Amino acid sequence: MGKTIIVGETVEGLPISEVVQAGGFIFFSGLVAADAEGRVITGGIAAETDHIFRQVETTLQSIGASLSDVVKVNAVLTNPNDFDGFNATYRKHFHTEPPARITTCAQLLIDARVELDLVAYVGDL
Amino acid sequence: MGKTIIVGETVEGLPISEVVQAGGFIFFSGLVAADAEGRVITGGIAAETDHIFRQVETTLQSIGASLSDVVKVNAVLTNPNDFDGFNATYRKHFHTEPPARITTCAQLLIDARVELDLVAYVGDL
Amino acid sequence: MGKTIIVGETVEGLPISEVVQAGGFIFFSGLVAADAEGRVITGGIAAETDHIFRQVETTLQSIGASLSDVVKVNAVLTNPNDFDGFNATYRKHFHTEPPARITTCAQLLIDARVELDLVAYVGDL
Repeated sequence: MGKTIIVGETVEGLPISEVVQAGGFIFFSGLVAADAEGRVITGGIAAETDHIFRQVETTLQSIGASLSDVVKVNAVLTNPNDFDGFNATYRKHFHTEPPARITTCAQLLIDARVELDLVAYVGDL
Repeated sequence: MGKTIIVGETVEGLPISEVVQAGGFIFFSGLVAADAEGRVITGGIAAETDHIFRQVETTLQSIGASLSDVVKVNAVLTNPNDFDGFNATYRKHFHTEPPARITTCAQLLIDARVELDLVAYVGDL
Repeated sequence: MGKTIIVGETVEGLPISEVVQAGGFIFFSGLVAADAEGRVITGGIAAETDHIFRQVETTLQSIGASLSDVVKVNAVLTNPNDFDGFNATYRKHFHTEPPARITTCAQLLIDARVELDLVAYVGDL
């Protein structure tokens, strides 16, 4: 019925497609700021947030879309004190018409400060 | 490709559109029961839940839709003891055919008892 | 405007439809591995995960769809030590082209090790 794998499995041992397209929407897996070896990058909340958005932007551009097509973000922080720093960096990626968002605090399965899960809408692209 | 901002940014400093439409769906940001100054209202779980649903209903009515078009709710409680009270109030807003829902406990970024994140389907409306 | 209840309310006192269809998508409520009396089954993370996927598979088959139509999974574990066991069992249900997924740790409202919330895409089926 038509799901398309945009980015497949990227982490050994994790049965997760990174990005899936269906019905005009793009579903991203929870993204953390990890390097090619799976280690979370250093630099704090701003660096992690920027790193995640570079990944998202690269993926969206590869299918002719952009960050402005993101409609919903699920943001999970591990430390509530990162909230202001997270918002400041996040704003740089959405100057106008940011997506809807929910932000909660939870424990992650990897030692990262932030995990983002996004939905974009690209229609019949 | 067509996302529409139904309700834009409402809280100073938060890069979040409150309600976004795309592909026939309406995506709400995480909603808490806050007054116009951003302070969480008093009155406990019932009052907070009712307050959130009044916001949602107003938004949906403004585009010709209603609470019956909500298809999925993500409910986050800060205190598991609020579960029964939350469900009792929630039921008043969905007498029949309630949406699908997931309910978890987590820490929120604001001192509220409940945060709700909703998806509604309105089609080509 | 067209939401369809695929599986209605199944737990007394909970105003939750278990599975809802709208706009070509299927939205599942948060699922835990509970028996007909609402008690979480014994057997640990593997047994719970298998139990949930049997429920999902039965529902999807009833509308002519299958697990391969699942596009996004929101997995909540209560114990991070279950992560490897969860992935091993999860993999058995998605040999190839697994859905996108986010996995976090949180407290649940029932004494289960895992809760899954899924979105499938079935189009005009």
